[in-house]
Amino acid sequence: MLEVLNNTNYVIPKAFISAIGNFTSFILHMTLTFSNFGSQNIYCFMVQYNPKDWITFIFRFHKSDTFRKLIPMMIFIGLYTYGVGYLELEFWQLSDKNHLSNITVMHSMLGFVISLLLVFRTNTAYDRWWEGRKLWGALVNNSRNLALKLSVILKNEHDRFYFKRTIPSYASILVKHLTDKETGLQLYDDLDLEIDHHKHRPNQVAKMIYQKIYDLYEQKVITGDQLIILNSEVQSFTDICGACERIKNTPIPYSYSAFIKKFIFFYVMTLPFGYVFSLGYYAIPVVIFVFYVLASLELIAEEIEDPFGFDANDLPIKKISENIKKHVEEVL
Amino acid sequence: MLEVLNNTNYVIPKAFISAIGNFTSFILHMTLTFSNFGSQNIYCFMVQYNPKDWITFIFRFHKSDTFRKLIPMMIFIGLYTYGVGYLELEFWQLSDKNHLSNITVMHSMLGFVISLLLVFRTNTAYDRWWEGRKLWGALVNNSRNLALKLSVILKNEHDRFYFKRTIPSYASILVKHLTDKETGLQLYDDLDLEIDHHKHRPNQVAKMIYQKIYDLYEQKVITGDQLIILNSEVQSFTDICGACERIKNTPIPYSYSAFIKKFIFFYVMTLPFGYVFSLGYYAIPVVIFVFYVLASLELIAEEIEDPFGFDANDLPIKKISENIKKHVEEVL
Amino acid sequence: MLEVLNNTNYVIPKAFISAIGNFTSFILHMTLTFSNFGSQNIYCFMVQYNPKDWITFIFRFHKSDTFRKLIPMMIFIGLYTYGVGYLELEFWQLSDKNHLSNITVMHSMLGFVISLLLVFRTNTAYDRWWEGRKLWGALVNNSRNLALKLSVILKNEHDRFYFKRTIPSYASILVKHLTDKETGLQLYDDLDLEIDHHKHRPNQVAKMIYQKIYDLYEQKVITGDQLIILNSEVQSFTDICGACERIKNTPIPYSYSAFIKKFIFFYVMTLPFGYVFSLGYYAIPVVIFVFYVLASLELIAEEIEDPFGFDANDLPIKKISENIKKHVEEVL
Amino acid sequence: MLEVLNNTNYVIPKAFISAIGNFTSFILHMTLTFSNFGSQNIYCFMVQYNPKDWITFIFRFHKSDTFRKLIPMMIFIGLYTYGVGYLELEFWQLSDKNHLSNITVMHSMLGFVISLLLVFRTNTAYDRWWEGRKLWGALVNNSRNLALKLSVILKNEHDRFYFKRTIPSYASILVKHLTDKETGLQLYDDLDLEIDHHKHRPNQVAKMIYQKIYDLYEQKVITGDQLIILNSEVQSFTDICGACERIKNTPIPYSYSAFIKKFIFFYVMTLPFGYVFSLGYYAIPVVIFVFYVLASLELIAEEIEDPFGFDANDLPIKKISENIKKHVEEVL
Amino acid sequence: MLEVLNNTNYVIPKAFISAIGNFTSFILHMTLTFSNFGSQNIYCFMVQYNPKDWITFIFRFHKSDTFRKLIPMMIFIGLYTYGVGYLELEFWQLSDKNHLSNITVMHSMLGFVISLLLVFRTNTAYDRWWEGRKLWGALVNNSRNLALKLSVILKNEHDRFYFKRTIPSYASILVKHLTDKETGLQLYDDLDLEIDHHKHRPNQVAKMIYQKIYDLYEQKVITGDQLIILNSEVQSFTDICGACERIKNTPIPYSYSAFIKKFIFFYVMTLPFGYVFSLGYYAIPVVIFVFYVLASLELIAEEIEDPFGFDANDLPIKKISENIKKHVEEVL
Repeated sequence: MLEVLNNTNYVIPKAFISAIGNFTSFILHMTLTFSNFGSQNIYCFMVQYNPKDWITFIFRFHKSDTFRKLIPMMIFIGLYTYGVGYLELEFWQLSDKNHLSNITVMHSMLGFVISLLLVFRTNTAYDRWWEGRKLWGALVNNSRNLALKLSVILKNEHDRFYFKRTIPSYASILVKHLTDKETGLQLYDDLDLEIDHHKHRPNQVAKMIYQKIYDLYEQKVITGDQLIILNSEVQSFTDICGACERIKNTPIPYSYSAFIKKFIFFYVMTLPFGYVFSLGYYAIPVVIFVFYVLASLELIAEEIEDPFGFDANDLPIKKISENIKKHVEEVL
Repeated sequence: MLEVLNNTNYVIPKAFISAIGNFTSFILHMTLTFSNFGSQNIYCFMVQYNPKDWITFIFRFHKSDTFRKLIPMMIFIGLYTYGVGYLELEFWQLSDKNHLSNITVMHSMLGFVISLLLVFRTNTAYDRWWEGRKLWGALVNNSRNLALKLSVILKNEHDRFYFKRTIPSYASILVKHLTDKETGLQLYDDLDLEIDHHKHRPNQVAKMIYQKIYDLYEQKVITGDQLIILNSEVQSFTDICGACERIKNTPIPYSYSAFIKKFIFFYVMTLPFGYVFSLGYYAIPVVIFVFYVLASLELIAEEIEDPFGFDANDLPIKKISENIKKHVEEVL
Repeated sequence: MLEVLNNTNYVIPKAFISAIGNFTSFILHMTLTFSNFGSQNIYCFMVQYNPKDWITFIFRFHKSDTFRKLIPMMIFIGLYTYGVGYLELEFWQLSDKNHLSNITVMHSMLGFVISLLLVFRTNTAYDRWWEGRKLWGALVNNSRNLALKLSVILKNEHDRFYFKRTIPSYASILVKHLTDKETGLQLYDDLDLEIDHHKHRPNQVAKMIYQKIYDLYEQKVITGDQLIILNSEVQSFTDICGACERIKNTPIPYSYSAFIKKFIFFYVMTLPFGYVFSLGYYAIPVVIFVFYVLASLELIAEEIEDPFGFDANDLPIKKISENIKKHVEEVL
Repeated sequence: MLEVLNNTNYVIPKAFISAIGNFTSFILHMTLTFSNFGSQNIYCFMVQYNPKDWITFIFRFHKSDTFRKLIPMMIFIGLYTYGVGYLELEFWQLSDKNHLSNITVMHSMLGFVISLLLVFRTNTAYDRWWEGRKLWGALVNNSRNLALKLSVILKNEHDRFYFKRTIPSYASILVKHLTDKETGLQLYDDLDLEIDHHKHRPNQVAKMIYQKIYDLYEQKVITGDQLIILNSEVQSFTDICGACERIKNTPIPYSYSAFIKKFIFFYVMTLPFGYVFSLGYYAIPVVIFVFYVLASLELIAEEIEDPFGFDANDLPIKKISENIKKHVEEVL
Repeated sequence: MLEVLNNTNYVIPKAFISAIGNFTSFILHMTLTFSNFGSQNIYCFMVQYNPKDWITFIFRFHKSDTFRKLIPMMIFIGLYTYGVGYLELEFWQLSDKNHLSNITVMHSMLGFVISLLLVFRTNTAYDRWWEGRKLWGALVNNSRNLALKLSVILKNEHDRFYFKRTIPSYASILVKHLTDKETGLQLYDDLDLEIDHHKHRPNQVAKMIYQKIYDLYEQKVITGDQLIILNSEVQSFTDICGACERIKNTPIPYSYSAFIKKFIFFYVMTLPFGYVFSLGYYAIPVVIFVFYVLASLELIAEEIEDPFGFDANDLPIKKISENIKKHVEEVL
């Protein structure tokens, strides 16, 4: 874009261009630091809120609010738009009839594509989040059902105590397993060595449960029909663990992630060129607002996509595993 | 936006700005009070209606109608638009060529994003509502099937009477459990204490059913093959309870909820700035109508999202549990 | 809208306004009568058609065609648009620069929302219709499979004859149950009394099938392994019945239905105000066409939403139940 | 539309109107003949292609390409647009300020609706096609699994040979059943008689498989546990057959099909009225291209919707059934 | 389009037209070569990335980035736009009022259709990719569960060693099977001969597992109840293999693939005709950017659609199969 301006023989202060480059990198780094900072609280609790309380939503800026995270970047976009406006309106004093003022036709045409893409992104991210929630819901259900069944089958207090301990421990081990950084990296090739030094802990607990049930079956405490009935719950534990790992270690394909970010960047960066003609310096808040909307959607999608992390919107799996413990102990 | 107006050296009566601020808060509180008032009827019945009767739909304003709920806010938006129009057209007498009149380009571009977001919101809310309905449909089916199976297996009138009482009671206990406020707050951390004083009641009923069936199995009244057949229904009760709890205690991620509300607010609040140039005071009904459409979609989604509350559109789970009672008693 | 016109000191003939009000009610009633009339044929057969025959589609107006149903309303919309055009262009002779001519910006902005909402409506209605079809497909499959299994298990001609009669009767009783008006009203509170005088007939048939199978199991005609195998089909009958009842008695939430109808009404009613400036009397066919498109989508969705009624597009469940009879008799 | 022109006192050559009418019918018949001709090849093979080879896609016009099928209709649309342009620009010499030139506002507003509808159509058609593919995939899997299980259970060469013949024959009979025209018409009422003279062939094969397995069970060759394990595969055959019949005999509701075709027709037919003012005779290629895009989407959806026919994009079920034969014979 | 220009009597240098034709072919070939070159690395690893690191996304151009792949084509589009601009603005010196300048109305109308189509394409491609990932996730889960169950059932070290070898080998054979080119071509008719010379290897491994389990069942090492429990995992292996084959050998219907590519091509190729009037030579970067966006979406969809290839975004099935090996060996 800038080369085109050069070709058409306008003078652009070189310093301005390089300043933009440097400043962009600097601000982007700041933004990153900010958002990383926001996610350093190790225990994650679901944000508690009343969905019908609009005032709080509109005027309070929660720590995890994208508005707060995007502030440095929004300031930069504002300055950038000011710079473009200054150059076009006052430095070169381009007339309203300059072809550059029609560049907005591109933005309105591509506005469709970018909106639809962001909604696609939102949908897939939400689907992963909701699937994660469903899996943990299933873990709750299966832990409860297994406890209920064993509570009526087992007469021996000792056997019941064994399961009172091991069933909830599956959930709590799974919390540790999923919040472990290495789990998210299982499918990258250069990380073989580190993973090797510990065993797959959820499998160890599952094996303990299987072992006890089959021992009781051999001791005729559990009949064959009961074994068949108990099987589905025990089996589901490993299925749930595997499905959570899948969500954790397989983000949306790299190409989409990279393409959407590039698209938003170029879209917002070219927006001021046309807008300053029709909006003057009002283009500054307008471009900031458009950037805020587009970038927010991408930022939220990134946070939701991996529901087992420490972001403010991630699933409260620690709390769920505590509830499992409480309910299983109540039943057995 | 208002600062920008200041910078460009127009005089804005300070009183006007602070009046807007105060009035907004006041009206928002009123709206909330209104909508809370509307949901105070403790027994919820699905609104009965004939989907083909258009006249009633268009000219009747049902208690739960978003039009009624939004009236105070719509009046405020009307006054606000009038204020903006008065300032721009009569106080400052801005010309049609003022850059501010082109601000509508932003609204038409972001109109697409906001529409898609609201449809995403509508979709996810409806999906939860429909999943809730499916779960209660499954509860009906499984209660019926369990009753049908037991009615042909059990010869003893006493045993049949036992299940005639306990099967429907699962559904009615689940109604109480789901309409209990604490159930919706299970996943928030600071609420541990209160939940502890009562046990998980649906689990207690499920345990009673399991206990009786395994007792009958040990007494050889129920054979091993029949035990396997009965298992799926009993097991499903706990699964359904867990899935309903999931829908109840996990609203849409906080970020989306907050972002959509912020977006609607800023979108509607900036709408009059450009519209008064092209529409004059006709902008008042236009902005009100746009606000009505956008806010209605968000309001309905909020209501539908938790299908187990007391809102007018929530599921008639009390009625369903009564039907279960009637049908189970008919069969056993 | 009309008040605004008054405020700005134009004379509107009072008679015109009240005439519009009365005429609207009258025509809406006519439309309703028409559409009810169209659905009085008690036996419903799926419309037979070749999806590749475009000419018939475009130039034939089938009885169930929305074009025919909407004709009275379309005539009214045409007259209304003519009235608006006459007032604006000839009675008051508003100039092209009147602010009212810019009201179309609202329509183009909300055009997104209304389109997306109608597609959401279409999707949910179609999903119900297709789910209904899948359920009846499952009924066909399970009836066939049960018949196939029993045909090889049972040697006694008498037992086979029993199932030859009862299996197809489940489907035909279900047809009666679903086309019974009371089934659709199960979840409304004020209808308790009437439902009570008859029992739930599909459950009675399901009980007969269960009874016979468990009798044969006790007589050792059916082994335990075979009982487990037969269970899934018999169980599915009650599941299918419950799921069909769910679709029948739970329409889309009242709020959406009411909101979409109100939205279409106000959208189309305000359309002529702006269009007559740019289109003159050509606005008449244009507004009629826009109304035809929007109302058709809503009308079709209403029809499809409850796939077990008597509308032309409803599922041919009577025919399917006859096919089940034919195939079961062929096998057993 | 044309009446409106008359009312406003322009002279339209009567011959022109009737010529359009006749010509439309003629061309539509030709188009139909063309597309029927294209589907006369009785053996259907999936089109083989490399999705990354763009040149072939863009410059080759495959027999099944919608471009080829639509050529006659596109020529007609071109002539029609020329006719409209000639009348408006040269015969009546309408000025650019004529209200008719603003009719494009309708097209841009309804452009959303038509796009969303076509994508809805595309989605549902693709879902059916993909569901059909999944069902045949399941048939492959279940045939293989049944063969694998029987190959290790049965020691007798004779018994194995029996299944080596009957398992693949289910798939090949299903191919015949699905490509039989009568299967697609099962749900139409006036066709009872013809269907009666042959039995439901897939059911006959399924019965043969069931019969043999239960005979072996009674001869104690297959134990009760093995019977339970074998059950799911045999049962699935009938389920798959029923689901394929469902896709085959239940097209998208007649109302949608008719509405979409009417909508496209009127949309394209009114397009030239406004376009000739702004585009002159360039409107000819533009209208043709718009028609090509809209009609292609509908045409492809029609083809995909019934995946068991003889169209070029239909599923290669014959080939799949041959693969089943090869793999079953390899295993048993 | 070009013929139209001829008819209206402008002189187009013949050489220019043929040059475009030749150059297009040449560049398209180059593009193909480039993209093929990019996929020659035989071992595929999922691209490792941090979704929150925006700078890398925006400024780094990964080997698999669509930007790199499209560079030759983008250069060509730039030159083509320059050519069109030169002809229209300088050679023929068409005035701004030329009808050609209004051709953009077509692009804005069809912009909606193309966006929705590309999102449909993106959705279906992503769904296949994610289904593939789910299938491999299920393979992981079932391998683990089978190993866990066998580890507690089997006491004999020898038997356990047998399964320690064969369970992971199913996954590794499946990797070879899916990356084998012939697997993707199973459903094309002219390839019968080559496939015949080797047997279906995953079926061979599945048979080995079945054989061993049924042998142990006959030796009474595995009881009947345990056989039923083990069945679901073994059976799922063949189901997963079949489903992966389905995704591999059934791309999106040829018609859609061809139509979308043709549509993008004609859309982008006609874009400069109107844009050069309003944008002058700025049309060059604009058209390039529009092309980049549309073509990227199609390119990414193509890559994702078949998740078992060697593209950078394909699933790391080799790595997953190694993880299965590690975890099974850990358990058994």
